[in-house]
Amino acid sequence: MSTLTFPSPLPSPSEDCEQLHKAFEGWGTNEGLIISVLAHRPAAHRREIRRAYAEIYGEDLLKPLDKELTRDFERAVLLWVLDAAERDAVLANEVVRKWSPGNRVLIEIAVVRKTEELLAAKRAYQVRFKRCLEEDVAAHTRDEYRKLLVPLVSTYRYEGAEVDKSLSKSEAKILHQKIKDNDYSHEDVIRILTTRSKAQLLATFNDYHNEFGNPINKDLKADPKNEFLSAMRAIIRCIICPEKYLEKVIRLAISKTGTDEGALSRIITTRAEVDMKQIKDLYYKRNSVALDSAVKKDTSGDFEDFLLALIGHEGA
Amino acid sequence: MSTLTFPSPLPSPSEDCEQLHKAFEGWGTNEGLIISVLAHRPAAHRREIRRAYAEIYGEDLLKPLDKELTRDFERAVLLWVLDAAERDAVLANEVVRKWSPGNRVLIEIAVVRKTEELLAAKRAYQVRFKRCLEEDVAAHTRDEYRKLLVPLVSTYRYEGAEVDKSLSKSEAKILHQKIKDNDYSHEDVIRILTTRSKAQLLATFNDYHNEFGNPINKDLKADPKNEFLSAMRAIIRCIICPEKYLEKVIRLAISKTGTDEGALSRIITTRAEVDMKQIKDLYYKRNSVALDSAVKKDTSGDFEDFLLALIGHEGA
Repeated sequence: MSTLTFPSPLPSPSEDCEQLHKAFEGWGTNEGLIISVLAHRPAAHRREIRRAYAEIYGEDLLKPLDKELTRDFERAVLLWVLDAAERDAVLANEVVRKWSPGNRVLIEIAVVRKTEELLAAKRAYQVRFKRCLEEDVAAHTRDEYRKLLVPLVSTYRYEGAEVDKSLSKSEAKILHQKIKDNDYSHEDVIRILTTRSKAQLLATFNDYHNEFGNPINKDLKADPKNEFLSAMRAIIRCIICPEKYLEKVIRLAISKTGTDEGALSRIITTRAEVDMKQIKDLYYKRNSVALDSAVKKDTSGDFEDFLLALIGHEGA
Repeated sequence: MSTLTFPSPLPSPSEDCEQLHKAFEGWGTNEGLIISVLAHRPAAHRREIRRAYAEIYGEDLLKPLDKELTRDFERAVLLWVLDAAERDAVLANEVVRKWSPGNRVLIEIAVVRKTEELLAAKRAYQVRFKRCLEEDVAAHTRDEYRKLLVPLVSTYRYEGAEVDKSLSKSEAKILHQKIKDNDYSHEDVIRILTTRSKAQLLATFNDYHNEFGNPINKDLKADPKNEFLSAMRAIIRCIICPEKYLEKVIRLAISKTGTDEGALSRIITTRAEVDMKQIKDLYYKRNSVALDSAVKKDTSGDFEDFLLALIGHEGA
């Protein structure tokens, strides 16, 4: 569920453009006005605003935003103004170009998104970067990560509810054997995780737990310092319960010494209109603090106001 | 270019259904009538016929066709009546279930088809088989073939004309080095072949030829009995010139002792409305015999009549 709030009826896109243009004009920028418009409009309407802005003022709305805003606030607003698919394409490209084994953004995009959303992101990637996501992931990752990440972003995963019970049993066994042998990047492990449907994988993880006593992710914690194991656990958590996974990303972004503003912006802009409500509820359950309060404490100024508005903070 | 011929204006779908229904009725089937209708209707119209037939007679047209026709003729007609995407899905599923290293159908579907056609086939595969193509390919292939075929059917390949000239030079060098080392299934070789755009790969193959003296496929002929090398050559040929590749498939299907009716039906039904004209021209150039004559010589009866109609044989 979305945490976005917006007036009903919505102002017309051209009225919104006028407000935005006013906010850019003269000395100083009226950030509050920008937030009051953009942080309270649903995706389809934001798209209309961007289209109308280009028509009326002859430039992409991203340009004045880029010129007038700064730092974390700028980045969050720019991400927010993009279409979901374009936003994923930009995020994926950033992470691919400076990829490191500890980065989980590709996993987030490949696994949290639905099949058609991932496809839309790959289309947007091609339009924007004139290459395919797969070739960039393949060219910029290495070793076992490449073996894992390339099929992860490539597969057009089936999303039906059908489950093959004999298959889940046999593949739970394969996973258990390979994990027992510390053969984590074995091609069968990767094949199962990257090509089976999420419903099928849930059944496999359940069979694993029932048959071998531990949740699979517990067995994958054997070596807590092994980054590859951590990547595998992230994939499995994104399959089992994406909201819980995303709650944890936010939790870590906030609890770090020095907030991870990038992660905070990414999760909030990508999930505000999808499942931010569930993530907020989970955050409260897990931390005994409302996400609103945590964001308030860890951020400031326009960036704070903007994020609070997106997560539906009262009065924001 | 298509070799299909059809009357203008086309009869209405319901008129065609009436003719087909008449052909199925009574003792014996009127195969000639079936051919005169189905082999002379473009894809969109065949789809309409199938829809209208279900509406008028309460069953899928495939049912009476399956019941009334036999053997190679039946198979060719059934393939032909399917939508292109559904047809590819059926062909891919057949070959995956009885996959062997010598089979080239997956390569044909993955590489000859355009990106959106392959995607449509993968969608049709999921609708029909309740699984994704990628997981079936991954589960039924082995060793270096799996390493090659899974990404080949997975990547949503970029189709733009942009070429990165420094990349084509560096990747030509990588390919040459790995081929020299007989390290054909090296992950970089597979990465390049399965993720780069066709335009980029053409540039890479040209650089390879210019820099190292031989066309890449000549160097990949080092061991003519190695099936894996032959699969790689097939991929490269499908990238360089799919029509030439398909001409060769037909040539081999016909020149074998015992015609390969399956291959003949597959190529003719999948390419009749795409590039069968070019394939026919290439066939004539390469064999000094018209494809029509060769098909006539190697097939018979309704099967012969049907294929000849699809390849635009005069009077068929």
